[in-house]
Amino acid sequence: MAERLPVAVLGANGRMGSEAVKAVTAAPDMELVAALGRSDSLESIVDAGARYVVDLTVPDSTEANVRFAVEHGLHAVVGTTGWTAERLESLRSLLAGNPGVGVLIAPNFALGSVLASAFAAKAARYFESVEIIELHHPDKVDAPSGTAVRTAQLVAASRAGAGVAPSPDATQTALDGARGADVDGVRVHSVRLRGLVAHQEVLLGGPGEQLTIRHDSFDRASFMPGVLLGLRSVAAHPGLTVGLDGYLDLGL
Amino acid sequence: MAERLPVAVLGANGRMGSEAVKAVTAAPDMELVAALGRSDSLESIVDAGARYVVDLTVPDSTEANVRFAVEHGLHAVVGTTGWTAERLESLRSLLAGNPGVGVLIAPNFALGSVLASAFAAKAARYFESVEIIELHHPDKVDAPSGTAVRTAQLVAASRAGAGVAPSPDATQTALDGARGADVDGVRVHSVRLRGLVAHQEVLLGGPGEQLTIRHDSFDRASFMPGVLLGLRSVAAHPGLTVGLDGYLDLGL
Amino acid sequence: MAERLPVAVLGANGRMGSEAVKAVTAAPDMELVAALGRSDSLESIVDAGARYVVDLTVPDSTEANVRFAVEHGLHAVVGTTGWTAERLESLRSLLAGNPGVGVLIAPNFALGSVLASAFAAKAARYFESVEIIELHHPDKVDAPSGTAVRTAQLVAASRAGAGVAPSPDATQTALDGARGADVDGVRVHSVRLRGLVAHQEVLLGGPGEQLTIRHDSFDRASFMPGVLLGLRSVAAHPGLTVGLDGYLDLGL
Amino acid sequence: MAERLPVAVLGANGRMGSEAVKAVTAAPDMELVAALGRSDSLESIVDAGARYVVDLTVPDSTEANVRFAVEHGLHAVVGTTGWTAERLESLRSLLAGNPGVGVLIAPNFALGSVLASAFAAKAARYFESVEIIELHHPDKVDAPSGTAVRTAQLVAASRAGAGVAPSPDATQTALDGARGADVDGVRVHSVRLRGLVAHQEVLLGGPGEQLTIRHDSFDRASFMPGVLLGLRSVAAHPGLTVGLDGYLDLGL
Repeated sequence: MAERLPVAVLGANGRMGSEAVKAVTAAPDMELVAALGRSDSLESIVDAGARYVVDLTVPDSTEANVRFAVEHGLHAVVGTTGWTAERLESLRSLLAGNPGVGVLIAPNFALGSVLASAFAAKAARYFESVEIIELHHPDKVDAPSGTAVRTAQLVAASRAGAGVAPSPDATQTALDGARGADVDGVRVHSVRLRGLVAHQEVLLGGPGEQLTIRHDSFDRASFMPGVLLGLRSVAAHPGLTVGLDGYLDLGL
Repeated sequence: MAERLPVAVLGANGRMGSEAVKAVTAAPDMELVAALGRSDSLESIVDAGARYVVDLTVPDSTEANVRFAVEHGLHAVVGTTGWTAERLESLRSLLAGNPGVGVLIAPNFALGSVLASAFAAKAARYFESVEIIELHHPDKVDAPSGTAVRTAQLVAASRAGAGVAPSPDATQTALDGARGADVDGVRVHSVRLRGLVAHQEVLLGGPGEQLTIRHDSFDRASFMPGVLLGLRSVAAHPGLTVGLDGYLDLGL
Repeated sequence: MAERLPVAVLGANGRMGSEAVKAVTAAPDMELVAALGRSDSLESIVDAGARYVVDLTVPDSTEANVRFAVEHGLHAVVGTTGWTAERLESLRSLLAGNPGVGVLIAPNFALGSVLASAFAAKAARYFESVEIIELHHPDKVDAPSGTAVRTAQLVAASRAGAGVAPSPDATQTALDGARGADVDGVRVHSVRLRGLVAHQEVLLGGPGEQLTIRHDSFDRASFMPGVLLGLRSVAAHPGLTVGLDGYLDLGL
Repeated sequence: MAERLPVAVLGANGRMGSEAVKAVTAAPDMELVAALGRSDSLESIVDAGARYVVDLTVPDSTEANVRFAVEHGLHAVVGTTGWTAERLESLRSLLAGNPGVGVLIAPNFALGSVLASAFAAKAARYFESVEIIELHHPDKVDAPSGTAVRTAQLVAASRAGAGVAPSPDATQTALDGARGADVDGVRVHSVRLRGLVAHQEVLLGGPGEQLTIRHDSFDRASFMPGVLLGLRSVAAHPGLTVGLDGYLDLGL
């Protein structure tokens, strides 16, 4: 039987971190060797024999955590935000001096969401029309969602690269806001509804046909398969990878 | 066997009228006795023995057509627009003097659309949140659609009548248009996509649950069951009825 | 300010009961005066001043609980199963002797689900075709769901009552199971998918149009608005009511 | 300005062929130089200067048509069925002797449908559960649809290749047919509804999330963008290509 991957979870008391503790514990091919909260010493993960680190902490501490991991030869899977271009560049330099070590920094671990965005971008050049609807709980403070904006940008770039004309739109009279927000020429509509969590539809239309790619996030558990996939793949991807799609086999 | 209803179609060469000619001809309980175009004489429908008239003409001629029908004791089912409050009032007076005659004026003959609006209005008082998405072909010049505006108004009135608070919305920062148009406090989003015809979704959300009522119109044929239902019911509803829902058994 | 309704929850430690405790506590027009577990004495709810009882216990104890409530003049809202025709008849007799007391026994407290079934039954007579898709988590042991079977029966009865022909189906060759289960002539399809909770779509189709009524239950919280609505309405409905739809204003 | 592609349509009086005549005529980068019916001579397309042939005829004549095209150095885009393995092999031999000529044989020209199948197959290895729902008009004689069976086979092969376990299913008691047809271990549900044309949903589920890929074919026009894309690409793909996906840029 293959050796189980020894994993340390940083930020183990947070909402995402506590899910990761459960997921790693339940994975038959992994062993949770350390689970650190805010005040625990990083040294303890080396003592515990960890070779893999999951960082789900806060923007203030993630950089130091990841640099510590790399310097100790540990692979890292990172879901914390706050990685500026400058931080990423500095990390790349550090990794250059630690050639066998892999780091994955992923703004989104939901496999379905990552796949949906990739599929939408790929399909967008083959259809006359494309619009995006995102739907979230009503306590969300921004609209559109960050994921919807990024998807719209990917879709717009794909169409621009293929020389596709803007989506046709004969609207002459409209109530304010009816046609949604314009993100790089792609219309994005934001629905806020009690009972929902996080959902997104990309609608693509051509003569006589429609292609719809929809992703539903029902709860935080949806991020864990992506975290586990990251842990299983990171050692095979030395250096820095940004975005879970770098680990997915998306060649079709 | 029951006698077949003798029906005349006015506006028989128009897009809706030609569909009605086909639908009446195909209906086993009806007989098409006259099909008039723009220049044909109204008198001919009396000669042909019509007792029912379908008016699918234009706003300029519909009033004269319907008055002619009523004065000759014929029941009328009317899909033409242009019926102002004044015209309706005048028609009511005429009908008061012709007590056995029924007239149905319906802005929308799609049964599914009429039912969807009625259900949405009924359900709206039981949910915290409600929003509307309408989706049409990209050659449409107005947004939102007239049906979506009417549905939003019905929904808003239903909630106001039941003392329901506005849908919750914590949005603090938004791109222009992301949250849709505001129709009486109900958010309405308009999608325009090649390949589509006319579609509408009412989304209702409460803690842990969602109710969605969606109607798709794929082609003009969708209006014909409503026209036939109107013809079969109009004699039993003397006087003026506005809206096909007046003929539907919607008591639940 | 109006007096708050004094409510006792029976089965307060169960999954549904603990949700009810939270919901009653949070409701501004209610006061939780007692929360009883399995071994607590029913007498204590009288001492506590309860005038309303929520029974979310088990089939073995619900009948005694409800009879106790009625005999003490307390209104009861009951979500427990196990109410046979015989038990219901006996309860009706008891209520006849306690004329001011109301009891609601509801197999389903999700407002959206109750509305969806009622709308589907109402609409079914106006469409040529109707089928049902229910979707649940893959740990469910029966297929189709009880709700889907009941919805199909309501739909079938509605169509039979209106003399509507069976849904057309020209299928000549089919793989076993492709066309779903047949419930009173209505096709029902059961999807089992990780990530889902409980979802149902009724699809109604006519020439050129489709009406879709979909309900999603994302979690147990979806039952609480129905429980609260039951508590607020039960005193105004003396005697026995079976089914939450009896309290909804569904006249359209 | 670039020269327009000189195109001949074979089977120009058929349902698909007449759509192709319209689509080629409307395409700004193409010129329709010949449109042949059943009794017209193939020689005339050479005289007319065609360099591209669209074959939308019948299984009995397609092989002779395509061989004629290849022998005269014309590229061919073929939507006719009836290409057995033997016929394909014989065509490959012929093409080996005509090295500059390209032939595309595509069972499905709907871009959205081809993309949906490819995306579903790619995503299937990343989710615990996958099921397929296909929905068609009620005059269809077979269930499931050929497209759904092929999609299920692609999905099953993708999962088998990645070592993914079968979709979980705890069903113990079920009505006959409730859980759909089993195609290589993938459940397929066939809905038949008046008003529909051809629609398919692939549902993929993992912990806390769902990915849905849906394709709607509203009318035959949906095949034309694929035919035009085939014509624009065929010269750059010498030899035989089976399936429109061979021309799509699906690397992600």
